[in-house]
Amino acid sequence: MLGAIEGGGTKFVCAVSDPALNIIDKIIIETESPKITLSSVFDFFSNHKIKALGLGSFGPIDINPKSKQYGYITSTPKLEWKNFNILQSIKDKISPKVALNTDVNVAAYAEFKRGAAVGKDSCVYLTIGTGIGGGVIINRSIVNNQQHPELGHIFVNRKKDDTFSGNCPYHKDCLEGLASGPAIIKRWNKTPSKLPDNHIAWEFEAYYLAQAIANYTLTIAPELIILGGGVMNNANLLNKIKSQFVSLINNYFDLPNVDQYIVTPALGNEAGIIGGLLIAKELLETKESK
Amino acid sequence: MLGAIEGGGTKFVCAVSDPALNIIDKIIIETESPKITLSSVFDFFSNHKIKALGLGSFGPIDINPKSKQYGYITSTPKLEWKNFNILQSIKDKISPKVALNTDVNVAAYAEFKRGAAVGKDSCVYLTIGTGIGGGVIINRSIVNNQQHPELGHIFVNRKKDDTFSGNCPYHKDCLEGLASGPAIIKRWNKTPSKLPDNHIAWEFEAYYLAQAIANYTLTIAPELIILGGGVMNNANLLNKIKSQFVSLINNYFDLPNVDQYIVTPALGNEAGIIGGLLIAKELLETKESK
Repeated sequence: MLGAIEGGGTKFVCAVSDPALNIIDKIIIETESPKITLSSVFDFFSNHKIKALGLGSFGPIDINPKSKQYGYITSTPKLEWKNFNILQSIKDKISPKVALNTDVNVAAYAEFKRGAAVGKDSCVYLTIGTGIGGGVIINRSIVNNQQHPELGHIFVNRKKDDTFSGNCPYHKDCLEGLASGPAIIKRWNKTPSKLPDNHIAWEFEAYYLAQAIANYTLTIAPELIILGGGVMNNANLLNKIKSQFVSLINNYFDLPNVDQYIVTPALGNEAGIIGGLLIAKELLETKESK
Repeated sequence: MLGAIEGGGTKFVCAVSDPALNIIDKIIIETESPKITLSSVFDFFSNHKIKALGLGSFGPIDINPKSKQYGYITSTPKLEWKNFNILQSIKDKISPKVALNTDVNVAAYAEFKRGAAVGKDSCVYLTIGTGIGGGVIINRSIVNNQQHPELGHIFVNRKKDDTFSGNCPYHKDCLEGLASGPAIIKRWNKTPSKLPDNHIAWEFEAYYLAQAIANYTLTIAPELIILGGGVMNNANLLNKIKSQFVSLINNYFDLPNVDQYIVTPALGNEAGIIGGLLIAKELLETKESK
C-alpha cells in the first residue's frame, strides 16, 4: 500500500492507496499540536501496511536532503511546530520510506502528472488563498534548488491608486502582501466572496496576479500556468487576469493562446493527496530499481 | 576541431579549438547584413575542419527544436536579419552539427561549467548593458521551456521618487526599461561611466536590480546569481545591490551569505566563446554516444 499525508496549517489529510493510486482509506484530522495531530495520523496508518509514503507539508520546511535541518518545519508562527522534525516522526512510526516536499510542490506535481499539465514538460502552479504559494515543474521535475520556491513573495509594481501598505509581515507589499485573501479583506473590509463582481477590488487583484504570471513567464517560460485557491473562486477573476496579462506582455513573447496558457486546476482539492501518493510511488520505484 | 560563434548585434566572434577547448584560431567580425557578415564567418571557418559548432545568437531567436521557425531570428529591429534562418546557413556552410542557443544562455552555461558557478547545480546569469538579458541553469541544464527566458523584461516596483517613464518599447517600465544603460542615459543625461559613485542614479539602479534578483530567487531559488555587463563596471554598484537585496528579502529566505550568493562573472568577455565551444563539444559527445 502507498500512503500520503497532506499536512496543512488547518488540517492534515491522510490517505492510503493501492499501487495504481486507487484510494482505499482516507481521513481528515484537525491541525493541533504535533503530539495530538500526529497521534491520530499514526492511528490511521496503523491499520495499513505502508510500503512508502509521500508527505506534502506546510512550511517553511527544510526539504534539502543535504541540510542538517532536513525534514524540520522552520520559522512557522505555529510555535508548537517550530523546529519540529516532522519527517523523522513519520519515518519512525509509519515507514522508513518517506518522500518529502512542500504542500504546494506536491500539488503542482499532481497537476503536472495527472491534472491540467498532462503532456507538458513544465508548468507553474500558484494557489491564492490565505497565503500565496506555488510550485514549479521544469524538465518534468519539481524545482528545488537552494531551497523551495516562494512564488507568493515576489515584488510587483504597485498600482498608482493603491494606498494599502500591504500586510506581509516580512515584505509588506510583496505579491502576498497585496493580493492574498487577508490582504483583500484588509484593503476593502470585505471577504472576497462578499465583493461584487464589478468591484474595483478585482481589477487590483488581476493586475497584481497578471504581473506575477508575467514575471514567472519571463523568468522560466513554462508551458502552462495553473491558478488555484479560494480567491480564484470569483467567477470573472480568471478572465480579468488573462486580459491584463496579455496587455502587460504586449506581444513580446511568443506564447500559446492565453486561454490555453493560464488555466484552473484539474484536480481541485485532490491535488495534495494525489501528489503525495505519486511521490511515494516514485520513491518506491527508485529504491526498488537500485 | 570544435567551432564557436558568438553572434551579437554589433560583432560576431568566431573561434576554433581542439577537443580540450584550447583556442587555436579566433576572429572578430562587425555585424552588418547576414550576407556580408556570414561570408566573412564562412571564410574564417573554411580553413578548419569543424566536427561540431556552438552558436550563441542575439535574439529574439527561435531555439525550440520542435518549432517550424527553429533557428530563425524573429522580431529583431535589425531588418536584414529578421526572419533569417541563421542556423540553416551555418549548417550548410560549416558543419551539419550545430548546437544553437541564445548568446546569454551560452554565456550562462560557460559561467556554470567553467566560471563562477563551478560546483553548483543551478545559477542565474544576468548581463546589464545596452539591454538586460540572462540565462538560467537548473539541474545542470540550460532552462528553455516554452521558449528562452527574457529575464530583463520582468516587472518591478517603481521607486516612489522615480519620474522616468521607462524606455522599453514593449513594456515601458519593465526592468530593462528602468535600469539598462540607455535607460540610465535617458534618465540622468549622462553615460553610466560619467556618473559619479555618489550619484543617486546608483541607488535607483541597485534598487531595481535587487528587486529583480529577489524575484528570481523567490521563483527558482538558484544557488548563485552572476551579474555582468557594462553597467556593472561601476565600482560600488555590486555592494549597493547586495545591501538592497538583503533588506528586501528581510531574512525570509534561508540563503548563503550574500557575498557568496551575488557575484561577478569569472570568464569576463570569454564566456560567449567558451560556452559555444562547450555546447559544440557536448553535441558531439551526445551524437557519438548514440
